[in-house]
Amino acid sequence: MTQPSSLNLARHPVGASHQTGRLLTPCLVLDTACMDANIARMRERLAGHSVLARPHVKTAKSMPVIRRMTHGSAAARLTVSTLSEAAAVISAGYRDVLYAVGVVPQKMPELARLARLSGARVSVILDSLEMAQAFVAFTATASSSDGLGLLDAFIELDVDDHRAGVRPESDELIAIGTVLAGTDGISQLRGVMTHAGGAYDCLTRVDLEAMATRERVGAVRAAQRLRDAGIACAEVSIGSTPTVSVATSFSGITEVRVGVYVFNDLVMVGLGVCEESQLALSVHTTVIGHQAQRGILLIDAGWMALSSDRSTAIHAQDLGLGRIAHTNLVVRSANQEHGLVQTDDGSPLDLSLYPIGSELRVLPIHACATAAAFSGYQVFGEPQGSAGAQSATYWPRFGGWSTDAL
Amino acid sequence: MTQPSSLNLARHPVGASHQTGRLLTPCLVLDTACMDANIARMRERLAGHSVLARPHVKTAKSMPVIRRMTHGSAAARLTVSTLSEAAAVISAGYRDVLYAVGVVPQKMPELARLARLSGARVSVILDSLEMAQAFVAFTATASSSDGLGLLDAFIELDVDDHRAGVRPESDELIAIGTVLAGTDGISQLRGVMTHAGGAYDCLTRVDLEAMATRERVGAVRAAQRLRDAGIACAEVSIGSTPTVSVATSFSGITEVRVGVYVFNDLVMVGLGVCEESQLALSVHTTVIGHQAQRGILLIDAGWMALSSDRSTAIHAQDLGLGRIAHTNLVVRSANQEHGLVQTDDGSPLDLSLYPIGSELRVLPIHACATAAAFSGYQVFGEPQGSAGAQSATYWPRFGGWSTDAL
Repeated sequence: MTQPSSLNLARHPVGASHQTGRLLTPCLVLDTACMDANIARMRERLAGHSVLARPHVKTAKSMPVIRRMTHGSAAARLTVSTLSEAAAVISAGYRDVLYAVGVVPQKMPELARLARLSGARVSVILDSLEMAQAFVAFTATASSSDGLGLLDAFIELDVDDHRAGVRPESDELIAIGTVLAGTDGISQLRGVMTHAGGAYDCLTRVDLEAMATRERVGAVRAAQRLRDAGIACAEVSIGSTPTVSVATSFSGITEVRVGVYVFNDLVMVGLGVCEESQLALSVHTTVIGHQAQRGILLIDAGWMALSSDRSTAIHAQDLGLGRIAHTNLVVRSANQEHGLVQTDDGSPLDLSLYPIGSELRVLPIHACATAAAFSGYQVFGEPQGSAGAQSATYWPRFGGWSTDAL
Repeated sequence: MTQPSSLNLARHPVGASHQTGRLLTPCLVLDTACMDANIARMRERLAGHSVLARPHVKTAKSMPVIRRMTHGSAAARLTVSTLSEAAAVISAGYRDVLYAVGVVPQKMPELARLARLSGARVSVILDSLEMAQAFVAFTATASSSDGLGLLDAFIELDVDDHRAGVRPESDELIAIGTVLAGTDGISQLRGVMTHAGGAYDCLTRVDLEAMATRERVGAVRAAQRLRDAGIACAEVSIGSTPTVSVATSFSGITEVRVGVYVFNDLVMVGLGVCEESQLALSVHTTVIGHQAQRGILLIDAGWMALSSDRSTAIHAQDLGLGRIAHTNLVVRSANQEHGLVQTDDGSPLDLSLYPIGSELRVLPIHACATAAAFSGYQVFGEPQGSAGAQSATYWPRFGGWSTDAL
């Protein structure tokens, strides 16, 4: 067991104590050197293949991070999971945005407004004949002569019984494609897409690679069936950080959607996709108490700061609500503002190593969930002015579901 | 099974689609008529006893709600779980605030600053000799001649092996009390407090009543031991919504801390503390897909909107991530922006009753966690101007851990 680590948390604009200049805990710390390495690794992974990245912004939800993920190019494609994220990236200049949650009629006017205001191409996903018809009817009504903004659609595929989508071999695929392709030469079908969410349940490398193959083969097969039926299908989009990290081929694929790779988390470690040293995000916390009789350390990061995500419970090692960096300690349970820390194997914990007031860092189980607990990142690793290399800058996150940003 | 309910969601300031004037889903809906009834019921519960309420703001985190909880009186005592909450209620005029998470030296300067800026009385909690000494040393240094602001402390008690605190029978209780009482006639000890968090694990009324008794008896006993040792102990503070709801006596208690009663949630229903009709909060959501082969309804409320809290898993009925109001449907699992809905008993679900685009309301498992996913409440039930009685107003929440509000 190592001694608790401590960052020099001086001179921070948000969350800082006015008197001491120190960060109040809990706060969310981002190591950009680690993040940049994660981004570079994914870029290298894809470099040898003729496939584009369409990074998902739902993990980071912060423009400085998204700019790094896209190498500062507004021409980059992006994936979003809320209209709020769509509004944020469109207002930041991005021009090709996929809203990757099944569209409903209530959201179409707002998506069209975002596309028209900015001239961006906004794509939706759908997986039913009913919604394909509603979408075509809506775009016919909403179209105008100025040519600004474009809504089109991907057909969502189900390759793993995980969530949504039509089966690649289904009749419905062709029926939906026919509706979207239209009869006037202006197809509203951009392509097919799938997300093998079942990858998160794969506990061996062999299973995960098999899932990646299943994702790719299913998507390519669906595209081929559409093309065989005379329906143009330009894009074949797959993804998740786990499947893209282990895939042995991208043949037939045009784009991959990845999000959590930018930060990584303990679920990714458990899936064998990264090492614990490649986690860019952590929650800085303070020891607020000892329960000597039970060998428990209390910290000021509860489920409000860590999230209640316990997704490593199905892994070989259940890391509870997070691991304390550089130790054998895990957050075993939590209340709203209290985390209860024990050793990962139930062995006795020497509380004297962690006096009340010690500062620790909790590595997140699920980066998307933990990051969502905070309004922004305390960023370490960036070049600084007078404040010195060890101080943090603040990168705000956008959240919620409203589109007030645009 | 009833038909899905639908609110008239017209004319909303936040989260609304600019073109349709409808609320974008998911959004957080608060029924103030229900909330007011919950507040009145708790007031009636305490009316026959000589005990003060010190409502906890961590559930609501919104000033209009907190004003209702305190009947608009700034003289009311409040409980907070973060310095951010403390800053918000102090800036709103409240003058007696208990920060009910174990204090550490790093947070003392900011607490003192909040107390001094406003003249509020700010109380902390602690459960170790080490922190009592640090607190007394800090207040001696921070004290000034202007008399503005006051920091004092409650000793936190452990009555149920749940989390933090010293045992009522321990030598440490007297040692801490002696340090806080001081030698100059100006005691920094305000009283003792405990939170029987174990109440949430009580699955029968008998067990819950026994836990309430244990909470009260432990706190009263600790106060008596301090007084027997010649140490003044003015306050004896207990609480949680479950224990206060079932307690058969408040003898010896001076104040009770309750928070979730204002909204209630499915955990409270499972504990027998309220009925489902007394839940004031829900997440408004839209059906975004069907998985006919598996009988699953997909909604646009995932764990980002509902939280990952699954606390009814230990109850007689496991309601997953929430129940759909007025139905036998539950959110059985979730991804970030997807909820997967099935019947509560696994019986077949007739998807045709819930076409894509239908709007439903999800009752929260844990109101504190679900509310924290949103920046504010869409409020129904308030008197309106021209917008009509069925439209919503917006009540913002304060969140995070910074004290920028003051």
